[in-house]
Formats: sequence, structure tokens, C-alpha cells
Amino acid sequence: MTSSKSANAIRMLAVDAVQKANSGHPGAPMGMADIATVLWQNFYRHNPTDPKWANRDRFVLSNGHGSMLQYALLHLSGYDLGIDDLKQFRQLHSKTPGHPEYGYTDGVETTTGPLGAGIANAVGMAIAEKTLAAQFNKPEFDLVDHYTYCFLGDGCLMEGISHEACSLAGTLKLGKLIAFWDDNGISIDGHVEGWFTDDTAKRFESYGWHVIRNIDGHNVNDITAAIELAQSVEDKPTLICCKTLIGFGSPNKSGSHDCHGSPLGDAEIAEVRKALDWDYAPFEIPADVYEEWDCKAKGQSLQQQWQDLFAEYAEAYPQEAKEFTRRVIKQELPADFNAKADAFVRACQADMKDMATRKASQDSIAFFANQLPELMGGSADLAGSNLTLWPEAKGIQEAEDGNYIFYGVREFGMSAIMNGIALHGGFIPFGATFLMFMEYARNAVRMASLMKAKNIFVYTHDSIGQGEDGPTHQPIEQIANLRMTPNLTTWRPCDAAEAAEAWRQALIKQTGPSALVFTRQGTKALERSESQLKDVAKGGYILKDCNGAAELIIIATGSEVALAVDAANALAEEGRRVRVVSMPSTNQFDAQSKEYRLSVLPADVPKLAVEAAHSDFWYKYVGLEGDVVGLTTFGESAPGGVLMKHFGFTAENVVAKAKALLG
Amino acid sequence: MTSSKSANAIRMLAVDAVQKANSGHPGAPMGMADIATVLWQNFYRHNPTDPKWANRDRFVLSNGHGSMLQYALLHLSGYDLGIDDLKQFRQLHSKTPGHPEYGYTDGVETTTGPLGAGIANAVGMAIAEKTLAAQFNKPEFDLVDHYTYCFLGDGCLMEGISHEACSLAGTLKLGKLIAFWDDNGISIDGHVEGWFTDDTAKRFESYGWHVIRNIDGHNVNDITAAIELAQSVEDKPTLICCKTLIGFGSPNKSGSHDCHGSPLGDAEIAEVRKALDWDYAPFEIPADVYEEWDCKAKGQSLQQQWQDLFAEYAEAYPQEAKEFTRRVIKQELPADFNAKADAFVRACQADMKDMATRKASQDSIAFFANQLPELMGGSADLAGSNLTLWPEAKGIQEAEDGNYIFYGVREFGMSAIMNGIALHGGFIPFGATFLMFMEYARNAVRMASLMKAKNIFVYTHDSIGQGEDGPTHQPIEQIANLRMTPNLTTWRPCDAAEAAEAWRQALIKQTGPSALVFTRQGTKALERSESQLKDVAKGGYILKDCNGAAELIIIATGSEVALAVDAANALAEEGRRVRVVSMPSTNQFDAQSKEYRLSVLPADVPKLAVEAAHSDFWYKYVGLEGDVVGLTTFGESAPGGVLMKHFGFTAENVVAKAKALLG
Repeated sequence: MTSSKSANAIRMLAVDAVQKANSGHPGAPMGMADIATVLWQNFYRHNPTDPKWANRDRFVLSNGHGSMLQYALLHLSGYDLGIDDLKQFRQLHSKTPGHPEYGYTDGVETTTGPLGAGIANAVGMAIAEKTLAAQFNKPEFDLVDHYTYCFLGDGCLMEGISHEACSLAGTLKLGKLIAFWDDNGISIDGHVEGWFTDDTAKRFESYGWHVIRNIDGHNVNDITAAIELAQSVEDKPTLICCKTLIGFGSPNKSGSHDCHGSPLGDAEIAEVRKALDWDYAPFEIPADVYEEWDCKAKGQSLQQQWQDLFAEYAEAYPQEAKEFTRRVIKQELPADFNAKADAFVRACQADMKDMATRKASQDSIAFFANQLPELMGGSADLAGSNLTLWPEAKGIQEAEDGNYIFYGVREFGMSAIMNGIALHGGFIPFGATFLMFMEYARNAVRMASLMKAKNIFVYTHDSIGQGEDGPTHQPIEQIANLRMTPNLTTWRPCDAAEAAEAWRQALIKQTGPSALVFTRQGTKALERSESQLKDVAKGGYILKDCNGAAELIIIATGSEVALAVDAANALAEEGRRVRVVSMPSTNQFDAQSKEYRLSVLPADVPKLAVEAAHSDFWYKYVGLEGDVVGLTTFGESAPGGVLMKHFGFTAENVVAKAKALLG
Repeated sequence: MTSSKSANAIRMLAVDAVQKANSGHPGAPMGMADIATVLWQNFYRHNPTDPKWANRDRFVLSNGHGSMLQYALLHLSGYDLGIDDLKQFRQLHSKTPGHPEYGYTDGVETTTGPLGAGIANAVGMAIAEKTLAAQFNKPEFDLVDHYTYCFLGDGCLMEGISHEACSLAGTLKLGKLIAFWDDNGISIDGHVEGWFTDDTAKRFESYGWHVIRNIDGHNVNDITAAIELAQSVEDKPTLICCKTLIGFGSPNKSGSHDCHGSPLGDAEIAEVRKALDWDYAPFEIPADVYEEWDCKAKGQSLQQQWQDLFAEYAEAYPQEAKEFTRRVIKQELPADFNAKADAFVRACQADMKDMATRKASQDSIAFFANQLPELMGGSADLAGSNLTLWPEAKGIQEAEDGNYIFYGVREFGMSAIMNGIALHGGFIPFGATFLMFMEYARNAVRMASLMKAKNIFVYTHDSIGQGEDGPTHQPIEQIANLRMTPNLTTWRPCDAAEAAEAWRQALIKQTGPSALVFTRQGTKALERSESQLKDVAKGGYILKDCNGAAELIIIATGSEVALAVDAANALAEEGRRVRVVSMPSTNQFDAQSKEYRLSVLPADVPKLAVEAAHSDFWYKYVGLEGDVVGLTTFGESAPGGVLMKHFGFTAENVVAKAKALLG
């Protein structure tokens, strides 16, 4: 076996780190080491000393279990990832967790591991690059001009998300997206012939990709020629099909799933050292290899050239340069954003217009999109139902500098692409579908939350209020699932004013994504004092209080808030003291001080929660002594109003439940 | 426009029913009416008077929003679906809900609506047919011998699940699966060119399908020839690409998304009547059309021929016929099942073996598979991690009469295919992945629950105990999501005995699917009395009580139960009276009598829940005065034991929290 010392350094770091951790995946790093070496040493434009340089190429390891490949590349290239960090592979709070985790390690552009998601992130990054270029580049100023490279394995290709993302990538002609398929014929269950017989090259051609077949993934000339050819085709993404040997260098385990996900063992590692002619101790890399790999000076020079270009650009186009700095480099909102948002929320309150909150959301989108050219909208083929289009929306399909993506019927692809767009920088993506079909995209929502990506998931048709489409389209347990997702802030506003505030909160949030849940059904505009309107931002607040100490608190969200107010009014007429708490975001409410929370929901007052969603979630707020008007079954097909009544979402039923609690 | 009266009857029923409901999708039924007429009148072998005839062809409308097409077909063919039922389209508790719902309407083989799921169900049905045929057919006795037909639209093809399911269908050479692509170039956002430019024919060829291109979906001869050709190819599934005009018959709205999802309106409907030369009132079908459609006599004759064949088969192969009757026709377990299961559960208890519950699950699978040849196992490329193989497991890829499916890395496809297998009859499918990747398949789990399909979802690597793979692979909020899914019974057993009982409960359940959640990490075998062992089936029970009235109850599940016992023992040594409740299934526990529940969890005793999953779920049981040792953040990458300690899953921490509650 012959391979470069540079590539063998990757292999040995992977083998030794996995062995030390006694856990991990040596096979993929060993198999892809030659491809990675050619790409990173000769093509990949990046600066290890400034991992956030705006115009760097992007690299995504979609087969994220091969994390040691990426860590080895980062270490050898000169990133802030020392040999001691590699020795901490898969240990608590190290920079080298089991899968590449965004935010843990400089140079890791996205968290990967869940298969297929990485290639979808890469598609998002390539969309961001292409659109940002169209928005900012000028004649002789290719300010935004970089490639997105992605490694992927058989597992990624089997996953449905690869279909969704790669199909759209073909339609969008993302010429600067270059993917490398690690065609090693092995997945965890063994040789793939029994379950994976796609003609993958043909499949990608059917998507409109440029496909380069039959590359020997261990032949430097082959790989080099393929990358050059890929770069020369500017109107199609490229898939380079690389035949590789999983575990290359392991005499007894290469070519088998035995080396996929387990340490090779000391005896076999000794054989690997012999086979690769590698005479160094674990974690010892000879100086000449470090020298070959070191990319710090080259990276600084590349970035400096770009900084010079940017300085010239700033002279020629000062306004655009300022905006580029704000959107892409600093990633901050315009200075006057909050003042304008305030005025907008107040105007929504003052208008007192009854409407479905999906319509209120559309009004918010129209307003905020005018403040924020970085807003990149979209919907999974439901623009007219989600109400995500606004007057100035332009599909990137029609205009390269557009601000809207017609994602097609691809919820999971859309959401993971949004993650890639958000991580790239320069855009705040939002994308919509019915709340029910959040489930199709569920893991991408979780990944956004894990990565704290600034993404806005818009979900309309929030409940049985959806109506005639029936139980397949009516969320029950979905909102609880969103609320329990760490780092995600979920909002279910009750009217236009709350909807506007929810949008604002999502846009100013710096610590992760938000889910905005809107009704299909109409909602009633509710009165609020100045201070109540401010309290919407706290996620839960007293919308209607009673004279004297409350005997009962009704907590409600979304379209059920008006119902709660009606019930409280009816009870007041009977002399009962009932407080109504509107709770558009339990997550935001939970983040308030204990003092505030107890001022809204005092411990000793019985509580009744009302929401057309799964009841179980609400015991956290009402306790064992409280009650919930909610759902524990699936919905039905009937007009939404009929269903609301059928399932007990009436003032009468809320009054009855309240009385039972009041005793 | 010319089209047969038979096809126009479908169109007009769809148009008029949607108009009457003022909601629905006329476009697809109008576009696919000619294809449906040819298929149902000349090829589709079924018996409207016995919709459950075992050897009927199966029909799946994957583009389920075209439900009126299916209802019209069922009505016209002679199913128990009267014209008055059609008038109740999309109304509460009608037989004609907005999307076809399994169990609501005779002849509806699966619930469709969530796009792409139907074709995956159809793949499952075709797998069931092929495998059942291999298991039961004998020379000259083609007892199992039917086609599975599936209609699908552009939306289904864009969804990733269509990739997963159709790729596997090609690998499995499902020659009796025939799919019709409604190639009308329209999705909800408009003409698909902006977001869907796949060469779909080429894509399906890359999967190994037989593809018939360029069929005029309004030309009877074309359609007929295509179906004949499809049937003649026995070693590949067929995709028939049918060019159709959405809303065919509507002079002003056909060919546009305007007719996709809204009533046409009275004026346009009048135009449709003219264009189709249809002189009948809404819901009036002339006798000659009914006559052309009526399939009752033909269906009875087809079934009678089969019954005769089965009678001969029963004479020649009495044992096989008996088993066929049990498994396929009656769909019941062997008479001695429960007695043997009892003995097995007792043996697991008596063994007192410490082990990971995924290993205990494997032992259960091995035992139950020997009792139940209908058990059809599988895993999404994680057989060696999920531990789903047993000594007699045979992949259907290697042996056509096998009992195991290597699904590849296709969680969503697997789960929806399992739904199809379960609905077909003759098998109880189970399929496995990591609990985390339940999310990829989430909507199929929900659909199983909605349809009450007898499916068993096996999820291993249940928590942060997963360890080094890190937060991308560590479930937090997933178990709560499963538990809140109506009709689904979720189990998280704490040792081998509970694991065996969980498997038994899943196998005997008649009202829907189960999710079995198992550990990667080791668990300790716990002692149980005879009556405690029986109580496992109740989902929650007193595992360890104290002398005298309890001062505190610790509720725990899975690997945390042993921890709770340790904590209770430590507290007992300090003279505290602490009860430990093991709660392997909150769903099953909730279904017990209130009396039983209160006997286990009396109202006035403080409660502490311990589970390495999201805390919020547990307030339903511990209330506002109780506490939870759980998680509200994502996990980390480190060895599982380190993480358990890091996140507070230690006896010391449980004792500390308990003491805080005890005051």
C-alpha cells in the first residue's frame, strides 16, 4: 500500500485517537484520507488563524462519524486544536467530541452525525454563497466567491434527506457545491449489496448534477483532475464518485465493516504502522509532515488578498460594504431595528384587527423583511397556505439576488438547508410548513437548536382548528415536542400583536432558533395596556386580572386565549375572581425570574390550562390539583369550528371545568 | 375533451362533493380519473362485498388529498359507501373524511395524506405479499398472488421518503408493485419547474425499477398497454409515468394549481358539466354508469375461485392452511402464546441477569420469534447495535421466505414500510434504530398510531447513557414525544424481566403500535415477588415499598430504577420511609383504574421522578410540589457513565433531592 505521508498522518491520528478513546470510527478517516489531503492541501481556501473569515471555503463532513478525519485536518492545518485536544477525543468538554459539533471546535462549520443532514447543510451554504454573491458582488469585485465541499458516505445517500436537498441543489444549479461520495461499499450491517443497489451516479444525473464517475479515491492524480473538472463546471453541482477502501492501511480489517465503528485494537494498529511504513509513536507527527500541512501563512495571505479587495470595494461601494459588514461579518441587526419593531408591535395592538395569526405573521414578515434584507424566506410548497410571501419577495429561482426559496415539498431538506444558510452567515432564514409536517423535518429543528443556529421555523395550521383535512394534518403532541427541545423558543401567539412580538423576539434572539406557531383559524384582537404589551416579550403575562386575589387562574395560548377571556367574563358575572394568563411562549416564560413567574402564577391558586394540544404538557404549570382543557386523542375531519366544539373548546366547557376546580 | 362516462362520473362526484363540503381537492381526482377507471374496471382484483379478502389486490392513494377519487371508486364499485356518505365528505364522523383514513372506510387500505408515506406503505404491502407467497405458496397453489397498485403525485416524489422506500423496492425486486405517477407538473406553489426538475424516470431506473415513460394519462389504450407491460415484468417494480392534466374537464382551471386544493365554484362547475357533457344533477349517477362500474359479482366470483383454491390447499397442506388462517385471515396469536410468554418472563426474572436491556430485548426476540413465524424483524442498518438479529433470522434479501429485513440507513422508509406490512396482514413487523433517529421516522410512528397498526418500534441507545457519540445521538425530549402520541404504548423497561414483559405486551396489543425503548448501558436485575412481576404489565407498580406509610415516592424508569432503589436504601438507613415505583410504561399505567393508580401513587405523598430524559414530562406525576431528576439541556460527548454522573444521575444526587422534598 502506498499513500502519502500527509495522508498517513491523518490515518494514524484517527487510529490512535479512536484506540485511546476506546470508541469511535477509524474506517472512514482511513478511507478518505487521500481525498482529504488533496482537497485540503491543494484546493481548500481557508485561514486556520481566522476560522470565521467571511469568504473562506466551507467544508462539511456529512458522514460525521468520521470526525477524527476532520479533527486531524484541523490540527495538521494549524487550527487552534492541539495534539492534546486530539488525545481527549470523545471525552467530556473536549474540543474533539464524538461527532463534529459546531461551536466546540474552530473550523467545524456544522454539526454532523445524523446522516444526510450534512449534505443538506452544505446545499444551504452553497445557496447562501450564490445568493450573497448576487446581492453584493460588483464588476471586478467578487467579494463572495467560495466553494462548499462536502464529504458523504453511503448512509447519507440512503437517507431521504439527501434526495430532497440534492434534487433542489440540481434545480438551483449550485455550481460551487462539490460533493465527494466515499463509495466504499460498506455500511454498518456489512456489504451494501443487500440493501443499497442504487446507480448513484445516474441518480444524481437525474437531479441535474455534474457527475464524475470512477475516481480512485487513493490516487492523487485522479482526485486532483476530478476537483479541477468539478470547478470548471459552473452551472451544476458536482458529485465526485470516489472508490475507496474503508480502513485503508489496515491489513486485516480494511474493506470490512469491522473497521467502521470500533477501535482496531493494539495488534492490528501495529500492523497498520507496518503497512503504512509509519515509524512514529501514537500522536507523534514528524516535523516534515507538519510542514507539508501547515496552512497558516497561506491562509493569512489568502485572507489578506480578500481584505485588500474588500477595502477597495468599501471605497467604491461604501453603502454595500457597510451592509456587508453588518450582515455578514458582524451578523447584527440594524441599529434602529428595535425602535421600529416597537412601533410596529404597538401599531398592531392599536389596530385591534381580528385575523388568523398566519395572516398576522404575513403582515409581520412584510414589515420585518423591509427592515432586514438578510431575511431569506421560504416554504415547503405551501406559500399560499403558510402566508409566507410578501410584496417584495423574489424567488431565488427567478432572481439570483432574491430573498425567497420555493423549497418544493421537502420539509426536512428545507429545514436542514436553512441550517446551512444560517451557519453560512449573511442571512436569517425562515421556512414554513404545516405544524404537522414539522415532524418530517423534526431532526433538523433539533440540530438547529443544538447548534444554536439563528433560524426561524414558521408553522401554520396549528391544531384541530385546521379542520377538514383531518387527523393526518392536525397537530396534537407536536407543540409539546417543540417546547421540550432545548435552546428552541416556541411561540404560539393569540392575536396580531402577540404575533408581531413573537416575530421580533425570534429576530433578536442570539442563542438559537425559534418556532412560530400560527393558526389557520381566525383569532380575536385582545386589549392590552402599555405594560401588558411589553410583557408579551416575557412569554407569559396577566392579560386580564380580577378585582382582589384570584380564586382561579386560566392559562391559555393562541386561539384559545379569547375563549379563556370569555369564560373568565362569564365567571366574573357569577362573582368569581378569575385571572387570565396568556402564555404565548412557555420557554420564554420559564426563562424569567422566579419572582416574576410567581407574580403571574402564584403557587396557591388553582390553575386551569386551555390549549388545543396535548394536555400532558400543561401539568408542569397546573400541577396535580389543576386541570387542563386539552386533547389526548387524535383529531377528526370536519370544519374547524365544529371540531373545536366537539373537543370541548367552548367557553361553556371551560366554565364548567373552572367551576369544578373552584369547588 | 373526450373521456369515458365512467371516468367522468368520478370527476363529477369529486367536483360536487368538494363543492358541497366547501373544502377539498378536485384537481387530482379529475386528472387521474381515466387511469383509475382503466385500472379499477379492467385490472384491479377485489371484492367490494368482502373488503378484507386476503388475496385482494391492494390500492394505495399516496397523493391522499385526492381522497374523493378513492371514495368515488369505492362507491361506484359497490363498497358499503353510499351516495349519502359522499355527501358527507369532510364532515364529522362520516365515512368520507378529508383524507382516506384506515378503519373509517371499507376498501381504504391505509391512511394517506402526509406525502410520500403512501408509496412507502405500498412497498411494505408488496414486501408482505412476496414474502407471504414464498412462505405459503406451493406448486400449483398460488395462494398469495396479488398486485399492489399505488397512485402518487409530484409531492410524493419530492419527499425524501419516496427515495428511501423506492430505492429499497428496487433492490428487493418487487415485481408486483406498480406505481402510477400523476405527472401533471403542478404542486401547490404552482408549476413545478422552479423547484422540481428531476428526471424522475431516470431516477427510478437508477433504483432498478422498470419505468414506462410518456403515457398519456387520458388515453385508455396507452394506460391499458402500460399496465399489461408492467405486469409482464416480474422482477422489477414498475413506475408508469402518466402525463395528465390536473383538473381535467375544468375549462378555466385545469392545468393550474387553482384547482388543486379548493372547490371550483358553482360557475366553473356548470362549465365542467358542459365540457364533460354531463347532464346529471350533483350526486346523480345514471344507471348505465353504475352498471359499468359495479364490481360486486365479479369480485365475489374472484374470491370464490380463491376460496376453492384454498379449500384444495387445505386438503393438501392442512398444517400450512391452519397457519395461514391464523396468521393472515384471523390475525391472531397461537393459542398457547400467553402461557409460553408467562414462562419466559418468569424465567427472565428467575435468572436475575444483569445486562443492557437491548441485550434483554434480543433474548426476547429470539424467544418470541420461535413462537411467532409472523414476526418480521429488521433494523435501519444497526442490527449489531440494536441487537435485532436472532439465530433463526433470515434476511429476505437472501431467502424470499425470510423473516428479517436489512432496511439500510432508511429510518422513515423502514417505519412506513412496516406500516404497510402490518396493514397487509400475515406479519407482525418490528424495526429498530437508535431512539434518536426515531425523529427521522417520526411521522410514520404517528401514522401507525393513527391507524392502530400492530407495529413494534424498537429503539435502543435510549439516553445520554449512549455515551461517546455525543448530543446528536442522545435522546432528551424523544421519550416524552412518544408517550404523548395517542394510541402508542411506549415502554422503557429497567431490566430483563421488564423487557420481556414489554415485548409480550407489544405482541398481544390489539389497538395499535408500541415503542420499546432499550438501553445501551448495562442494567441491574431487580428482585420481584410473583405479584410484582404480574404488575409490570400494568405499566407502573410498587417495586420496593417501605414499612409504614411512605413519606416519599421515587418514580423511575429504565436504567434509573436501580439508582432509585439505591437511593431509597440509603434513605431507609437514615430511617426515612421511601417507596420506589418502577414505571416502564406511563401509557399503560394511565390506562389502569384510578383506584390502582392511587394505590401506587397516593395523592398526598411527595414524589420525585428520576429519568435520564426531559424533566417536563414528569410533572404530570409529581405535580408542582414534587421534583424531577431529569434533563432540560442536550447531552455531551463522553463515556456514558461519566455523563450519568455529570448530569446528576447518581444515588447521592437522588438522595439530596429526596431530602429536599422530605424537608
